[in-house]
Amino acid sequence: MPEHIDLLISECLAVTVDDNHSVIEKAGIAINNGKIVALDKIENLAQSYKAKRTISAKNKMAIPGLINAHTHAAMVYFRGLADDLPLKEWLENHIWPAEAQYVNAEFIRKAVKLAALEMLKSGTTTFCDMYFLPGVAVESLEEMKIKAILGVPLLDFPTPVSRSSEEGLKNARKLIESLKGHDRFIPAVMPHSPYTCSAKLLKQAAEMSKEYNIPLQIHLSEEKWENEKIISEKGMSSVAYLNELTVLSERTTAAHVNWISNEDVEILKKTKTGVIHNPQSNMKLATGICPVPELLKAGINVGLGTDGAASNNDLDMFGEVQTAAMLHKIAKKDPTVIDAKEALWMATRGGAKAFGLDQEIGSLEVNKKADIVLLDMDKPHLIPLYDAHSQLVYSAKSSDVDTVIIDGNVVVENGCLLICDEEEILNEARIFSRKLKGVPF
Amino acid sequence: MPEHIDLLISECLAVTVDDNHSVIEKAGIAINNGKIVALDKIENLAQSYKAKRTISAKNKMAIPGLINAHTHAAMVYFRGLADDLPLKEWLENHIWPAEAQYVNAEFIRKAVKLAALEMLKSGTTTFCDMYFLPGVAVESLEEMKIKAILGVPLLDFPTPVSRSSEEGLKNARKLIESLKGHDRFIPAVMPHSPYTCSAKLLKQAAEMSKEYNIPLQIHLSEEKWENEKIISEKGMSSVAYLNELTVLSERTTAAHVNWISNEDVEILKKTKTGVIHNPQSNMKLATGICPVPELLKAGINVGLGTDGAASNNDLDMFGEVQTAAMLHKIAKKDPTVIDAKEALWMATRGGAKAFGLDQEIGSLEVNKKADIVLLDMDKPHLIPLYDAHSQLVYSAKSSDVDTVIIDGNVVVENGCLLICDEEEILNEARIFSRKLKGVPF
Repeated sequence: MPEHIDLLISECLAVTVDDNHSVIEKAGIAINNGKIVALDKIENLAQSYKAKRTISAKNKMAIPGLINAHTHAAMVYFRGLADDLPLKEWLENHIWPAEAQYVNAEFIRKAVKLAALEMLKSGTTTFCDMYFLPGVAVESLEEMKIKAILGVPLLDFPTPVSRSSEEGLKNARKLIESLKGHDRFIPAVMPHSPYTCSAKLLKQAAEMSKEYNIPLQIHLSEEKWENEKIISEKGMSSVAYLNELTVLSERTTAAHVNWISNEDVEILKKTKTGVIHNPQSNMKLATGICPVPELLKAGINVGLGTDGAASNNDLDMFGEVQTAAMLHKIAKKDPTVIDAKEALWMATRGGAKAFGLDQEIGSLEVNKKADIVLLDMDKPHLIPLYDAHSQLVYSAKSSDVDTVIIDGNVVVENGCLLICDEEEILNEARIFSRKLKGVPF
Repeated sequence: MPEHIDLLISECLAVTVDDNHSVIEKAGIAINNGKIVALDKIENLAQSYKAKRTISAKNKMAIPGLINAHTHAAMVYFRGLADDLPLKEWLENHIWPAEAQYVNAEFIRKAVKLAALEMLKSGTTTFCDMYFLPGVAVESLEEMKIKAILGVPLLDFPTPVSRSSEEGLKNARKLIESLKGHDRFIPAVMPHSPYTCSAKLLKQAAEMSKEYNIPLQIHLSEEKWENEKIISEKGMSSVAYLNELTVLSERTTAAHVNWISNEDVEILKKTKTGVIHNPQSNMKLATGICPVPELLKAGINVGLGTDGAASNNDLDMFGEVQTAAMLHKIAKKDPTVIDAKEALWMATRGGAKAFGLDQEIGSLEVNKKADIVLLDMDKPHLIPLYDAHSQLVYSAKSSDVDTVIIDGNVVVENGCLLICDEEEILNEARIFSRKLKGVPF
């Protein structure tokens, strides 16, 4: 007797991102109660399951939902506001003034929807967000079905939405309590950086992460001067400084990490700290190059992120994977230092491990959540197909995303969002951008 | 009385790439006999023209057709065949054996169609191709409407299609004669490189280019060892060596040009040699970084190319423009060394100037050929829109291409090719790839 299940994906090319980087041709993926219950050649599965719905995925590639492990989602509303500028000028003369004037609950509510729309349509099913008013973001994102790790940004100076670090910590605790037991939103502790947080605040953040056993994310050594400042003030590197303050642990992910020493790599390894690499943002703002090959060699877990769309200028993980694969080759003058499999791993398993979610998401494996992206391979730029990993990393684009499934529910189909009105989200963004600056549409 | 014209594009956002980088909101583009006859705010044009057909382009951006200034089009059939390898191993153990076994007239005929399909759908209207059997390519491309500069690759050793350099030269002359007066295909002389051509062959190539007054394209200093080899053998740099052989002139474009000195820059400038930059190929194969900011500063013309899809792995000029804009920022640790306008310029005007076509193509200006690409801006990743150049370079993707017009004829509409059967082209590619290697589809 066949087993009754919710959904069967049939005849896809499954790029599983399991420990062996297995690729299964003409695969079937059986899904029930939001989880993958079987994954094998379809010929081995077809007789065993009777599905309420079957998606015929011939000429489609199935990959795990992508994990954008570091972003500032609501900043999509500032996409392209200012470019080709040094980070300091860009922040101080453009981004911070715009944030001071415009960021409020309404802004967050609308902007995160645009961000989620862009992410879903480009195959991202989980993201880690550091931005103001995450409680508002959570409410707005509820209907979008996307998963997120979110936290209140903690800083030692007033922000558009908080007067002090004490208020920030209070709001952080409130968010954590409110998200207890939520199935798609995971609270995190998010001290902004070693140079914008006092030692006291960094310690408080570390304690909060430990108290609740939740992720902690922090910007670390993005620009050279940041690390130099900490060295001159504290007599040790940013990494060593955070370690001394007990900020580094297996719960911690550090974003960027461009300027570090061999000793720093050792500390990251020993503390099991994860690193989130943001190659496009780092290239565009010319902030530095994260030593990813060295980190991977040391066995440090590395995830991938887009950073905010104001610096990137998109939330497209396909672009990020390709850039990661290419950047380190040229940086090391060696095309073998990172390969397509490793690049894809970072965008999936690396992100999942970074947030302690490796048992749940990040690969197509039995018992994991059914967060699955189907790519349409019937495109001129995806033919011929000799190697699935290579095709994914060097030739596929986010626009090849056809279907996105989260917890077994189809949220994007034929490239269109099924769960809410796309046009309304786009219109709100147009209205905002007209308010901010005279623009054509 | 309104003037009768063939086509009017109304209400687009026109990114002209004229000398002032003008952007015109709610623009109209009047087209007649394959040329742009007027370009202005639509309100200033609407009364003056009566068009056989009007394309309403509200929420669309119009840009000049992109120019892929260095590629090996038919190599799309080897896309993803071998990756993450050093150039020498990749060439000697994978690409050359595959070429030796498979490249023939039938291969070229089919493969260039796939390449042209990919290029047209991604907004490229003109490309410069260095690959075997360009005469066969020309026949096959006739119905595709795309424009090309093509030449017989000249080498001092036997190729899959030619026994000697003499035979190559004979075939080159034959191609040049056969393309006299062709309106879309321009013949060129294509000695492969200083390290694969003898001094005699290089001189013969230079003379042929001069005799017919046609472009000459050559690979130059892609990898470090190439330049070092020439220095050790000839006692001078590759650039100086080519200059001594009279290969460098205003007709000449050199592809890659990653390893050059300040003196070489002076020579390129003095001889008015153009440079074709291939950032993605150079990153992926880790061959080097072309000093584009220095070249632009010296007033040297720089075009952009994808290189072949076996090394890139696509023919997508949008990816190339974005990569060019980001790569030099991080390479120089300065986000101001190249901006969005300069990056777009290279992919349009830079390419046009490289082949002496700046009076005909490369910008949206009156009297130029109507080679126009319309991008659909109604996408989550293209909203808000604050700066058209920035949006184009950092956020737009080739999949945003909605309409492609060549010589005033619509060849792509709603992202679909109008002029021949896409599916047939894809199928031929699938059949070939099955022949080459066991693959899933």
